[in-house]
Formats: sequence, structure tokens, C-alpha cells
Amino acid sequence: MADSSAVDALIEALRRLPGVGVKSASRMAFHLLQHDRDAMQRIARALQEAAAEVRHCERCNTFTEAPVCSVCLDARRDATKLCVVETPADQAALERTGAFRGYYFVLMGKLSPLDGIGPKDIGISKLFERALDGAVSEVILATNFTAEGEATAHVIGEALRQRGLTVTRLARGVPAGSELEYVDLGTIAHALVDRR
Amino acid sequence: MADSSAVDALIEALRRLPGVGVKSASRMAFHLLQHDRDAMQRIARALQEAAAEVRHCERCNTFTEAPVCSVCLDARRDATKLCVVETPADQAALERTGAFRGYYFVLMGKLSPLDGIGPKDIGISKLFERALDGAVSEVILATNFTAEGEATAHVIGEALRQRGLTVTRLARGVPAGSELEYVDLGTIAHALVDRR
Repeated sequence: MADSSAVDALIEALRRLPGVGVKSASRMAFHLLQHDRDAMQRIARALQEAAAEVRHCERCNTFTEAPVCSVCLDARRDATKLCVVETPADQAALERTGAFRGYYFVLMGKLSPLDGIGPKDIGISKLFERALDGAVSEVILATNFTAEGEATAHVIGEALRQRGLTVTRLARGVPAGSELEYVDLGTIAHALVDRR
Repeated sequence: MADSSAVDALIEALRRLPGVGVKSASRMAFHLLQHDRDAMQRIARALQEAAAEVRHCERCNTFTEAPVCSVCLDARRDATKLCVVETPADQAALERTGAFRGYYFVLMGKLSPLDGIGPKDIGISKLFERALDGAVSEVILATNFTAEGEATAHVIGEALRQRGLTVTRLARGVPAGSELEYVDLGTIAHALVDRR
């Protein structure tokens, strides 16, 4: 598009980012070249450092630079409770609530047969190993409440129940601060069934 | 968010891309780390190469790796016609039509007082120098038909007319293939006024 193979190569490379097509990639490349060459160096260095240093925690599978992440190393946590989440962002959301003091396992994905993502592609065997270490008595499934997240919870839950663990799922119900009139029917129906 | 300063640094760096907030940046970082480490190296190298090698063409101001770009070096073009565009993407669109065989000048931006972008921030003095080289007799303003593009065309057009050049603007009218019923009123009004 520009008279430069380096610009074309940059546009092609930026298209590898998720959700970025050729128009967005061109806009990014032109913006960086015209207004923010400093950011180009910064992004390049951050990519190289992360690619070289970031690995998966041996215990919980999250991203970390150490063999075991700081949450797994925190000995004051309740070792009988293990919370299963899809991503580090989900784990961060749960941590911010301050309502859970057990350990986590981060799947780094969800079952999605349509995208060819099966049990082997998300760390399910690693999860089973972790959950059956003897200390864990309850596994809390905190995958998302989407079709894939529910399917993932179902598959994991069934397998762990068969191995003798207590398996629970985050409660479904009416979100805090909402008016019933504006809550969708599926959520109200779940809240009725799960009333307490 | 993750247990890794390298991941956090990567998310911060990716936020420097235009149109990318913290949610998109996290999604990009997690996707790359989990599924596409290869792309991380590729994007990093492309950024560094482009930052090091891409400069502005001395004649037309577009991105190029040589002192003068290949379009400006093409001696078979009509040196009496100079087409002013906002970006290399706009130039590429005009080239694809095959309807213009003159030279270009790429502003690499547009006047936008609200964003603090004045005449000095888009290469206007370089354009005047280029347009007044003696060979150019007609300047065709092909900035976008947005508020900023129109203002840019007005400012450049007035200045070049005062210096004795013929200044024209791309025609406004009904797009090819469209039905009048679905064309906006402003466009139809322009097409009526400019009827031929």
C-alpha cells in the first residue's frame, strides 16, 4: 500500500493480532510511523520480553515468570478450596472481590468443539492432577456463564465428581443493584429455581 | 492482572496502539502468549525494522525506505498534475482506479484544530515547495469529504490559487451503482448543483 516493503510487512504482522483486519492494521501502522515511533520500540521490546520470559505456573497454569506464581506460593490460603477459571482476567475479577481465599486453577481457554478446542487443548489433565493432590476437597467452577463456559464446567464437574471431590458452581441469579423489570427472563428463572 | 510484570508491561505497551483499550490489549496479550508466540517475534521484528527504515519521500512525503519513492521516480507520469491526498491508503485507492497518471503529494494527516493539528503539523510548506516547482500547473485536491478534509482542501486551495496555480477538487455526486432513493440528501443536492 505504501511505497515500502517494511510498512507492508508491518501491516501483515499486525494482522496477526486478534480482531485486527487489514484496515485496522494499516491505521495502526500509519499512526505509529507518523506519530509514535517511540511506542514501536516499546511494543517490540515488550513482545520480545514477554515471549522469552512468560511461562505457565506449574501448579495453577496461569502466566508467570517464575516456576510457581505468587498466588500458589501464598501459604496462608485455604488449600482445601480450588477455584477453576478460564483466564487470568477472570481470576483477577474474583481476587478483587476479596470473597475467596483458596487457590486457583486457570484453564487458559474453554472447551469449544466448533473451534476445534477439546479437553487436551485446555489444561484439563493438569487440572485433574492439581485437584487430586489430596489437600483439595472442594472445586468451585467459575467458568463463564456462556454456552462454552457452561459446557466446560459440565465436563470438568462430572469428571471430578466421579473422582470423589465436592464440585460447586458459582450461583446464578439477579445481579446486585438491578431492577427485576430490566433483568432477562433466563436470569430470573434461574434465580427462582435457586431461591434460598 | 496476571502474575507477571512482563505480561502487564505487554498490555500497557499494546494500549499505545490506536483504538486499543485495556480490555482489547489484555485479550491480544493473552491470545499471543497462549496461541501465537511466533507472531510476537514477527510483530516485534516488523516494528523495529519499520521504525528504523521507514522515512518520508523527499518529494511527495509518503512512507518509503528510499530517499525518493518509486511513484515520484516514475518519469512517464504527467509532471503538470499533482494530486493531494491525506494518507498512503487514499493514494493507493486513486492508483487502483488507473484514472490518474500524474504525481502525488501525501499530507500524512489533515487539518484538525480541535485535535491541535494545524498547518505546520501536516506537510503544508513542503507541499507548497513541491507544487511551485515550475512544472506543476494543476493541483487536484483529493482530501476526504469529511469536515476536516474539506477544511484542509479549502486552506490549501486558497493558498495555491493565490500563487497562480489551477486548483481543482474531486467531483461530488451520486456514487456509481446507487439508487437515488437511498442516497443522502446532501449528496443529491451537491449532484444537482454540479450537474453537467
